[in-house]
Amino acid sequence: MRVGVLTGGGDCPGLNAVIRAVVRKGVQQYGYEFVGFRDGWRGPLEGLTRTLDVKAVRGILPRGGTILGSSRTNPIKIEGGVERIKENLANLGVDALVAIGGEDTLGVATALHAQGVQVVGVPKTIDNDLNATDYTFGFDTAVTIATEAIDRLHTTAESHHRVLVIEVMGRHAGWIALHSGMAGGANVILIPEEKYDIEQVCEWVESRFKSEYAPIVVVSEGAAPQEGDEILLNQEVDSFGHVRLGGVGERLAAEIEKRTGKESRTTVLGHVQRGGTPTPRDRWLATRFGLHAIDAVKDADWGKMVALQGTDIVRVPLSAATTELKTVPLSLYEEAKVLFG
Amino acid sequence: MRVGVLTGGGDCPGLNAVIRAVVRKGVQQYGYEFVGFRDGWRGPLEGLTRTLDVKAVRGILPRGGTILGSSRTNPIKIEGGVERIKENLANLGVDALVAIGGEDTLGVATALHAQGVQVVGVPKTIDNDLNATDYTFGFDTAVTIATEAIDRLHTTAESHHRVLVIEVMGRHAGWIALHSGMAGGANVILIPEEKYDIEQVCEWVESRFKSEYAPIVVVSEGAAPQEGDEILLNQEVDSFGHVRLGGVGERLAAEIEKRTGKESRTTVLGHVQRGGTPTPRDRWLATRFGLHAIDAVKDADWGKMVALQGTDIVRVPLSAATTELKTVPLSLYEEAKVLFG
Amino acid sequence: MRVGVLTGGGDCPGLNAVIRAVVRKGVQQYGYEFVGFRDGWRGPLEGLTRTLDVKAVRGILPRGGTILGSSRTNPIKIEGGVERIKENLANLGVDALVAIGGEDTLGVATALHAQGVQVVGVPKTIDNDLNATDYTFGFDTAVTIATEAIDRLHTTAESHHRVLVIEVMGRHAGWIALHSGMAGGANVILIPEEKYDIEQVCEWVESRFKSEYAPIVVVSEGAAPQEGDEILLNQEVDSFGHVRLGGVGERLAAEIEKRTGKESRTTVLGHVQRGGTPTPRDRWLATRFGLHAIDAVKDADWGKMVALQGTDIVRVPLSAATTELKTVPLSLYEEAKVLFG
Amino acid sequence: MRVGVLTGGGDCPGLNAVIRAVVRKGVQQYGYEFVGFRDGWRGPLEGLTRTLDVKAVRGILPRGGTILGSSRTNPIKIEGGVERIKENLANLGVDALVAIGGEDTLGVATALHAQGVQVVGVPKTIDNDLNATDYTFGFDTAVTIATEAIDRLHTTAESHHRVLVIEVMGRHAGWIALHSGMAGGANVILIPEEKYDIEQVCEWVESRFKSEYAPIVVVSEGAAPQEGDEILLNQEVDSFGHVRLGGVGERLAAEIEKRTGKESRTTVLGHVQRGGTPTPRDRWLATRFGLHAIDAVKDADWGKMVALQGTDIVRVPLSAATTELKTVPLSLYEEAKVLFG
Repeated sequence: MRVGVLTGGGDCPGLNAVIRAVVRKGVQQYGYEFVGFRDGWRGPLEGLTRTLDVKAVRGILPRGGTILGSSRTNPIKIEGGVERIKENLANLGVDALVAIGGEDTLGVATALHAQGVQVVGVPKTIDNDLNATDYTFGFDTAVTIATEAIDRLHTTAESHHRVLVIEVMGRHAGWIALHSGMAGGANVILIPEEKYDIEQVCEWVESRFKSEYAPIVVVSEGAAPQEGDEILLNQEVDSFGHVRLGGVGERLAAEIEKRTGKESRTTVLGHVQRGGTPTPRDRWLATRFGLHAIDAVKDADWGKMVALQGTDIVRVPLSAATTELKTVPLSLYEEAKVLFG
Repeated sequence: MRVGVLTGGGDCPGLNAVIRAVVRKGVQQYGYEFVGFRDGWRGPLEGLTRTLDVKAVRGILPRGGTILGSSRTNPIKIEGGVERIKENLANLGVDALVAIGGEDTLGVATALHAQGVQVVGVPKTIDNDLNATDYTFGFDTAVTIATEAIDRLHTTAESHHRVLVIEVMGRHAGWIALHSGMAGGANVILIPEEKYDIEQVCEWVESRFKSEYAPIVVVSEGAAPQEGDEILLNQEVDSFGHVRLGGVGERLAAEIEKRTGKESRTTVLGHVQRGGTPTPRDRWLATRFGLHAIDAVKDADWGKMVALQGTDIVRVPLSAATTELKTVPLSLYEEAKVLFG
Repeated sequence: MRVGVLTGGGDCPGLNAVIRAVVRKGVQQYGYEFVGFRDGWRGPLEGLTRTLDVKAVRGILPRGGTILGSSRTNPIKIEGGVERIKENLANLGVDALVAIGGEDTLGVATALHAQGVQVVGVPKTIDNDLNATDYTFGFDTAVTIATEAIDRLHTTAESHHRVLVIEVMGRHAGWIALHSGMAGGANVILIPEEKYDIEQVCEWVESRFKSEYAPIVVVSEGAAPQEGDEILLNQEVDSFGHVRLGGVGERLAAEIEKRTGKESRTTVLGHVQRGGTPTPRDRWLATRFGLHAIDAVKDADWGKMVALQGTDIVRVPLSAATTELKTVPLSLYEEAKVLFG
Repeated sequence: MRVGVLTGGGDCPGLNAVIRAVVRKGVQQYGYEFVGFRDGWRGPLEGLTRTLDVKAVRGILPRGGTILGSSRTNPIKIEGGVERIKENLANLGVDALVAIGGEDTLGVATALHAQGVQVVGVPKTIDNDLNATDYTFGFDTAVTIATEAIDRLHTTAESHHRVLVIEVMGRHAGWIALHSGMAGGANVILIPEEKYDIEQVCEWVESRFKSEYAPIVVVSEGAAPQEGDEILLNQEVDSFGHVRLGGVGERLAAEIEKRTGKESRTTVLGHVQRGGTPTPRDRWLATRFGLHAIDAVKDADWGKMVALQGTDIVRVPLSAATTELKTVPLSLYEEAKVLFG
């Protein structure tokens, strides 16, 4: 058996841990050979490969990034893309694929599986918004980095009676904001799932000051105010399509400052949240995903992806990754609100 | 409603996070008053209390230890203990108890509940060996500290071609060893659940050296060799009942050195694993346990404890905490072994 | 002897470590009593005090912030301010002051000393830009936090072939940028001491991409382009006088993106750099400053401040703190540039 | 110019940072070529080399260990060793050597220089006990790791009223114990420079308990009791010459327990202290050492080593590394003692 491996989409701590587990168990337990495909689906599309054996995966467990590289190339949107992939797999003697990625990457895997490609998936998203699994690797690392920043902001907030706003990742789902905000003892947490009322935000801010402490506001990059609030006016979108020159956090801080008269400062963690070594929990989850993905190959259980349910790794249909986003339930958000202010 | 809170048994990061969540939600949402009992069951037994209000729990979320203190006092083993507790609760006007602790502490809670005391439990064990819950808080912190140590040992092991043995907590269950060993890329993991064959250990050690790397051996304090191996002879037990002067790790290193001729050194993390600030994940879990425990009080759902199942906090009978230990399933240990050597 | 202690100016990890050392040595070795003044010079100005004894300083060594609070109140600019301070000191029976702070705080101390107040100073600046001392506490912590962020950015920069810009503290001096940039292996470091040439910046950026790696750009918040570059146009200054809605880092990233065509993202660490627990080195330095400051009180060596020279703590005139800023020598900046690109 | 580089002696975080700086500045600024010698002096002795160019040093700045490997091989003690090295250097066209190491490695460099070899040294010792330099890289990392462990021990010490003993590195000099003990707020620090009085130790321990806190005792592995104390009896020395089965910390804990009746536990950090990524300060120092070492080569300033004095990197004779050890001055130890108990 000759197995191709690829990683697609955005950077996420734990990718290398998955690759290592897949290869080590595949080689040592099942005697498989491996082909590393470079840069996500571009690898099989263009026949870009690299050596992938036990030696190649030594020492990569704790490293961020992916030794295979990544891209957002989508072969389905390229004419003849699927055929070229099938040809390349055949030419390289690749019998099966392990595709590690998020909604887009696994969407391609689903389509290829429908066309007869023997593929197994491993879910990946820093944002934890994939429906079929309790958690995805990388998420715990992102939450940890954000929480450490919140911990540090507390002392400054208190010493200077300032509002400190911290913008964290999460365009469509507020998991990182919710978890890091609760773990860090934030006084306001704003998530994309519920449009916020700037007056309510300012009330929480004022209430915190009454306790002689100063407030920390955690805001998802995808959080937005209720209609009518002017806070998001004036923003500029650059040629790559992302908001520049005054992001969500910076604008929110300016608005809070204007309304409460309290000096407000912003921290924008940005890509710090998705780089560097994974937490032990993420390494554990990524390793177990890898071990179970290669078992699925062994079982010829094509079209499946591995998922975490409780403490078990299970297999679910690949299509489960591409159904609706797993957003924060409003009941969970309400549960957290008792700790605001 | 007047609610007493106590923490019993060994130290565990996250205890303060539970206390804070219980008190904040209790006061702010339900209008309860709280009484802090000092030093575990000694508090209600001897009527030792401290103020426990919203101000008292400010800032304690990230702190290790417990502001209430702890002890291993067991009122059931003391004549008239249960009656004295009931009297003290009555005198202090305490209607209900939230007991945070492990097998012993919750065992007392179970007995008191049987005698009519209105009690709710929160499970606590650094070792993660309580049956009724997927995880307990404190465990992720212990695993993280052990993994960070393993990460650091790798470079030295390699530079000097030495065997590095690290002894971690776990007298009856190998969860900390298994998780940190997998996350840290250890080459041998020894747990209490399976007696080890010292020859097999030395084979894994030798095999690792063949790859031009040097081995890390993670050993639970409760791991033991198969019968006939002399490695645990000569140990001394002190007056407090714990092994001194050559613990499990040190003896194992000496034996590996003797058998393989490779220089072997030992790290014994000891109580470093259970102190200091909890990881974000442990703070999140502890906070949610606290929020749900006070909901159980609100619901008058006595004799229950909160537990994690998947991503949900549920309630299970208190007695679930005192049934058999949750040890590492041998199938899970086998899964890990493919990465040894 | 009755000694007053105060902390002034911006937050800085290590303030509590100084206070603790002053009090513990003062009480235990010299038998002094202490008065804690609240909120910098506002404390003696308005007679705001708090208890400051051995018990009050237990456990504060590792904590960020200052238990005494801080402010930027300048009694010299207030009519009759100096007299009121002298009166309050007399009324409270305070014989001597230990003033912990930066240029402004120590400037007031200098003026008070000229008017007969018995004062000793301890230098404090996160930016490390005080002339009379090799280093100030808090600086190592800020550098450590910035470096950890740079470490994490590397993997993402590489996986996605993006330019990652990180804005760090330093309005007038580039010490944090220089140290963290060198420690983190940044590819461009921009400091206030030398106006940058945006074309040269883009050359370094392009050069890095040629090595198949992606560049990290560290920029001090006080770094500025050479005249003629438009990059700082359009910025808005808010009512507190700080730049909003597109800071230095964000604008630089936008400009690099425009000129090189490479996607560029920004991290703005903000106050994360000055909060939280001090590094061990900062705790050591702060503790030694405190021990030597109380020795200066013992020696009645008024008008002096403690300073680090090599591995020694020495005393220099208080006025040394208020002479010209210690900026990064251009020769040192040149030395670093060999590692750019 | 063709320059050989080698690293000798024990592992130390920062070695790779030195190598990288030497190579990058040598290649990019001076146009030198480099030869990497493997495993310390064994490399030039046996002609073991590896490629050492800009590509080879990419990404190694934050990594512990040394890409060149290390050994304790001493060519001076091998007959004809010096001649073989000179021959090998000639055959490989190596004009000059940069030797990175401690007392032994630089002792060899001194001897070779006396015999006409063009050599420049970089001092390295985790223990900070080299006389000619204010600090050596690796020391700050070791202190940081030990301090983090002490931080964590505090909460457990307090929750359980136990004595916690932590054994740190330092056979001949107590720098790591002194710095980490002061930074961590230890209640007793024992160093090799002053034999300890076990009764005094127990007094400090008891005194701490009176404050309602529990004591942390930091002990250098080279600390020893005054004559007459039996505490070090019974120890066993293994075939590699190091003490086994009850090290310094474990024996001290047992003795304290016996004398005070307080439960005492031990942490032995071991090689955790010298592995893993260097702190930002150590990376900065190591990088500057490297940049200045290659400048010494450029200046043909043979027989010198780089050293830190204040904030400057200077050059001192290589022989300075091999004169007497820099131990902790007793005055500095006395200064720290005011914080004991």
